Amino acid sequence: MRRFSILSYGFSALLFAALPVLAADQDVIDYREAVMKIFNEQTGALGQIASGVVPDDNLVTHMQVLAMTAQTALKAFEPKVPGGEAKPGIWSNWADFSKRMTEFAQQSAAGAKIAKEQGKDAALEQLVNIADDCKDCHDTYRQEKK
Amino acid sequence: MRRFSILSYGFSALLFAALPVLAADQDVIDYREAVMKIFNEQTGALGQIASGVVPDDNLVTHMQVLAMTAQTALKAFEPKVPGGEAKPGIWSNWADFSKRMTEFAQQSAAGAKIAKEQGKDAALEQLVNIADDCKDCHDTYRQEKK
Repeated sequence: MRRFSILSYGFSALLFAALPVLAADQDVIDYREAVMKIFNEQTGALGQIASGVVPDDNLVTHMQVLAMTAQTALKAFEPKVPGGEAKPGIWSNWADFSKRMTEFAQQSAAGAKIAKEQGKDAALEQLVNIADDCKDCHDTYRQEKK
Repeated sequence: MRRFSILSYGFSALLFAALPVLAADQDVIDYREAVMKIFNEQTGALGQIASGVVPDDNLVTHMQVLAMTAQTALKAFEPKVPGGEAKPGIWSNWADFSKRMTEFAQQSAAGAKIAKEQGKDAALEQLVNIADDCKDCHDTYRQEKK
């Protein structure tokens, strides 16, 4: 699947060469949505660990991946390209949005450290704090499409 | 969205308490699918970077996340629960499957190191090697559902 992903993106890039502005916009949207989907799958996995339905062997790694991906997220939103599920307020309130994203990266990094040093219960407590911030930011800046 | 993920998993766990065997099986499938989706989104993002349609600022981080997630993947398949897109051969040929997954983790770790030390071109060359192995393993052990 990976190879096809890469090939199909390469192919899209060729197609898009004829439509540079539209293509660039869609690429920007695709990229930030890929980043947000990584969060979604990561927190889905962490939610399963939290509720005890899968073992917690990978807890620390999932928390670390969440933290690392959080470092990429702000950059993914830097190009001012409304569309997808992103509300235009992201760019008209960039100072607030970027502050939230930066705090999210900091809280996630703290969560990874807590998971490694203090274990599951403490990590999940931090994860709930992070999830609250996620929800607040989504409520403000995301228009969910079903 | 994250909070809802966690809450919904917690709620599912309560529901599943009445159907422990079926629930456990579906949880196992959901978890490994979350892990595989992380790969998919990660390589989608890397494919965009490879084709130059988004900047490469996050290249090293994406390669590192790929490597870290690869460490979690084998564990996600350890419970012998066919279903989803996993072919039963995974468990009847466990020695082969686990060897491939272990090599994938090693190659991804090498890729993250290459990305950090040698830059984009070398990293993408390694990524193509990894993608080849992904495709081979999918061809053998995955039954894709549309």
